[in-house]
Amino acid sequence: MRTFLPASRRPLTLSLLFLLSTSTAVCLGQAASSEVPVPAEVRSQAEALQRSALEGTRAYDVVRSLTVEVGPRLAGSPGDKAAVEWGLRTLKELGFSNVRAEKVTVPHWERGEESGAILAPYPQPVVLAALGGSVGTPEGGLEAEVIEVPSLDALSALDPARAQGKIVFISTRMERTKDGSGYGRAVGMRGRGPSAAAKLGAVALLIRSVGTDNYRTPHTGATRYEEGVAKIPAAALSNPDADLLSAQIATGKPVRFRLRLGARYLPDAESANVIGEIPGREKPEEIVLLGCHLDSWDLGTGAVDDAAGCAIMMEAA
Amino acid sequence: MRTFLPASRRPLTLSLLFLLSTSTAVCLGQAASSEVPVPAEVRSQAEALQRSALEGTRAYDVVRSLTVEVGPRLAGSPGDKAAVEWGLRTLKELGFSNVRAEKVTVPHWERGEESGAILAPYPQPVVLAALGGSVGTPEGGLEAEVIEVPSLDALSALDPARAQGKIVFISTRMERTKDGSGYGRAVGMRGRGPSAAAKLGAVALLIRSVGTDNYRTPHTGATRYEEGVAKIPAAALSNPDADLLSAQIATGKPVRFRLRLGARYLPDAESANVIGEIPGREKPEEIVLLGCHLDSWDLGTGAVDDAAGCAIMMEAA
Repeated sequence: MRTFLPASRRPLTLSLLFLLSTSTAVCLGQAASSEVPVPAEVRSQAEALQRSALEGTRAYDVVRSLTVEVGPRLAGSPGDKAAVEWGLRTLKELGFSNVRAEKVTVPHWERGEESGAILAPYPQPVVLAALGGSVGTPEGGLEAEVIEVPSLDALSALDPARAQGKIVFISTRMERTKDGSGYGRAVGMRGRGPSAAAKLGAVALLIRSVGTDNYRTPHTGATRYEEGVAKIPAAALSNPDADLLSAQIATGKPVRFRLRLGARYLPDAESANVIGEIPGREKPEEIVLLGCHLDSWDLGTGAVDDAAGCAIMMEAA
Repeated sequence: MRTFLPASRRPLTLSLLFLLSTSTAVCLGQAASSEVPVPAEVRSQAEALQRSALEGTRAYDVVRSLTVEVGPRLAGSPGDKAAVEWGLRTLKELGFSNVRAEKVTVPHWERGEESGAILAPYPQPVVLAALGGSVGTPEGGLEAEVIEVPSLDALSALDPARAQGKIVFISTRMERTKDGSGYGRAVGMRGRGPSAAAKLGAVALLIRSVGTDNYRTPHTGATRYEEGVAKIPAAALSNPDADLLSAQIATGKPVRFRLRLGARYLPDAESANVIGEIPGREKPEEIVLLGCHLDSWDLGTGAVDDAAGCAIMMEAA
């Protein structure tokens, strides 16, 4: 995971960063220690800011604008270019100084067309999405028998003879928890699953979507490949389709599956960090850096991840 | 809406009906009046049946089997044929008498490939589904400006000059209510929208999905065309995509849209009502008829609509 930090060293620099990751935001600051009493004037100013934020719609307007007028913005895509333009325009409109784009090079992954189907014992189409960064299947897809394991740990303990030439399906269900720990326990199969399966000779990986919904909406999210291990195609089934595949496997009959992923890497593309500043008045040698990532996955409009982060950052500035 | 009733007149006939509609189940019976005191023996039997139903998994097994082993079963499709086979097999396994298939002819509508995209002012793909029974677009799709109306009533009151040559978008939002009344208030646009729009010279209809979810899963469901009115293609946008389209229209800029629906009618197909019986012992001249519909929409596996109805019926018998 690479992040792109601006070279700027100007006092009180506010940076709107383009980051490759869709889940990492950079936020460095000097917070007031809770042990220092807050002067009445500062408290009054803070309360005024809070009122203004609660009454205003600017943060919402920023999210609306980025999602409605730009939309999906996968690194290297036309949406990415549009997002950089949007960032420059929006920071200028909001009155930031020294607004500029600093070029960066980003990997350029493209989803392409994708589909999946159970071929036997009971033929049915399923809904799936390639994991971000997955390689594609051969054109026309690949067909193989599916074996199911309940977890990444169970996969690691599997006899390679069982996985050889098969599609491995990791069916870990993300638990709904208030503290997000369910995500942490489930997400490992997404990043580490493909190489773990490839080491056992599997030809592709399927996982249950890392998400708690019951809709036929598969989830993407980044996967990665270990150096020196075969890169096999990897996709997430929507939760109902994961249930369907599990139920067919539970009949004890061999389950054949056809997977077609048009995913591929294009040559690295040019993008940019978008930077704006609020020059400091009192302590020009100190810097507060706020960041968000402009890019998003392609299957939605990136409202939470990370248009909301950009809106929060712009409001905080 | 056609329903196919069996000709059978044998005592205590249990009929598993194939019905064209996905939302109509036939259930005719002689219920005991609530004013008649229930004898202790009957009450005891009823309680035993209730316990058995609550402890058993047969109803669930029926739903699982029909959804997992048959899946989507649009009238006239291979899934429809598989469902008839499933019905015959399952009724026999459950010990019904005189299990048989009675041929019926059904309309054969096919979805085909479909897609939609906002072309201007801010290009973005959207997720949509043809309404059941919709005609398709010309191959390659159609492009036009979109105008939005908040309801079917507002559409009826519209100046035809505004709709002429346009795609009409009805954006009524289904309210979440406990008694289902939100569905009743919203669903009219689905059945009557296409002809209402066509009368004003519109070239296609879009509606907001009739559903309360916020996922990118568009809803299908039957539409119909009035006699003597042009048949225009009709599709439902998922709720987030309906929000996106509304938000772009709200900018005041002309919104251009491309719609491609591969939907079409094939020649009428042969299907069947599947019928099983429990012969009566005491009152052979009286008939209790229970029914469900085997067919389902194509975008899911038809668990609630109407595999659950079939399971309830089989258990009740």
